[in-house]
Amino acid sequence: MILIKLGGSIITNKEKPLSARRKTIEKLAKSLKKIDEPIIIVHGGGSYGHYWSVKYDMHTKEKKYDLRGIAIVKNSMIELNKIILDLFLKNKLSPYCLPPTDFMMGNKPIQKKIKEITKIAKSGLVPVTYGDALWFGQKKTYILSGDKIMTHLAKTLKPRLVIFALNEDGLYSDLRSKKLIYELKGEQPSISENKMDVTGGMARKVEEATKISKMGMNVFFVNGNKSERIVKAVKNRKFEGTLFRGKKNV
Amino acid sequence: MILIKLGGSIITNKEKPLSARRKTIEKLAKSLKKIDEPIIIVHGGGSYGHYWSVKYDMHTKEKKYDLRGIAIVKNSMIELNKIILDLFLKNKLSPYCLPPTDFMMGNKPIQKKIKEITKIAKSGLVPVTYGDALWFGQKKTYILSGDKIMTHLAKTLKPRLVIFALNEDGLYSDLRSKKLIYELKGEQPSISENKMDVTGGMARKVEEATKISKMGMNVFFVNGNKSERIVKAVKNRKFEGTLFRGKKNV
Repeated sequence: MILIKLGGSIITNKEKPLSARRKTIEKLAKSLKKIDEPIIIVHGGGSYGHYWSVKYDMHTKEKKYDLRGIAIVKNSMIELNKIILDLFLKNKLSPYCLPPTDFMMGNKPIQKKIKEITKIAKSGLVPVTYGDALWFGQKKTYILSGDKIMTHLAKTLKPRLVIFALNEDGLYSDLRSKKLIYELKGEQPSISENKMDVTGGMARKVEEATKISKMGMNVFFVNGNKSERIVKAVKNRKFEGTLFRGKKNV
Repeated sequence: MILIKLGGSIITNKEKPLSARRKTIEKLAKSLKKIDEPIIIVHGGGSYGHYWSVKYDMHTKEKKYDLRGIAIVKNSMIELNKIILDLFLKNKLSPYCLPPTDFMMGNKPIQKKIKEITKIAKSGLVPVTYGDALWFGQKKTYILSGDKIMTHLAKTLKPRLVIFALNEDGLYSDLRSKKLIYELKGEQPSISENKMDVTGGMARKVEEATKISKMGMNVFFVNGNKSERIVKAVKNRKFEGTLFRGKKNV
């Protein structure tokens, strides 16, 4: 089983509020269709969820956020999700939408529900989930990022390969020269800041990817604009991006 | 707490595939806004979900249905749901979308998740769920009707009043004369058949409403085109529709 995150920066134009990159999503769908293994898709919020989260000052911390803000963030994520579902369907994938409320209770993942997701994927359907504003309890809500969902799912489902599709070739040892790190072995990659991202941007992705690789799984950062690289990585032909090699620290 | 079902026949034009009745939904939203108690909304599939369920021969029975059919039925429900969420938002309600996968595991309701829905409603958000195609397990799926969801939610949450908004004034003792039954006391209402409805139409609604009233709750069938009648019923001013009076059979 392959767990794939479609980053908000690749499926939307992060510079422009509420703009989905439909052609990129279609190309991604066409590549995903070529994968013969069960896949699970997680997507980010990009210029949908993040745009509104910033406007309503909502974060990953549990708090009593504005009710209207919650409703608007959630609605914008459904809108982005619907675009992805439609384009998946158009490209012969059979998506099965699972907003994260399916497998979360407060801020805790529900193991039984997460285990069911693999079964859904193995039936031939493609489970699709996403970062979202979620009910926490005691009148509080929070933003659950797609990256955090990746860790929750990876931990329980132990996918053969975990992929983050980004708007970059991978991690760079130097941002200016864009020198690609093919395999991250403890060094500190050069990362830019993004104020539009309430869930932590690239630094957060590196953090979650490191956690997952420490659980023993290979994690691969790849350029989603070159979606054939995803197929190549899945088929073990070539890893053109940054690999976090899985190591069990037993 | 008030539990309200917006029937597929009222929020869509059942005669015409994939046609939402936006003006009716807006009027309903405006009336719902006038209710001072926590409310939970369930909606049906109408000419969205039912249209595709019929096309792909999908029913409430758990079976290995066509994967593409599942994806298409689900997608159409997200589309209809999104229209409702948007119009709720536009009319100053703060919807909180909970597709039924949130509180279902196979075909069993998850009590802990259902209990959380009241808390969400009490925070001021309006939980919105709907009839949907759902994963059952062992590669099987099934259609969970909005009416069935009403029974699941009522059983656990014991709302003060349960309302079904229909495209009729209520139940009739005679379909031709449209003589309204103001209170159903065991008699057999006159019900028409609808082949477009894979989840059982009016007969199913009567069945679920009877179950709920036997659990001790008042159930009220009302014409959703006259949405002020919902407000009047909630405020105990007038019940212009059909009432199933709640009786505990202890």
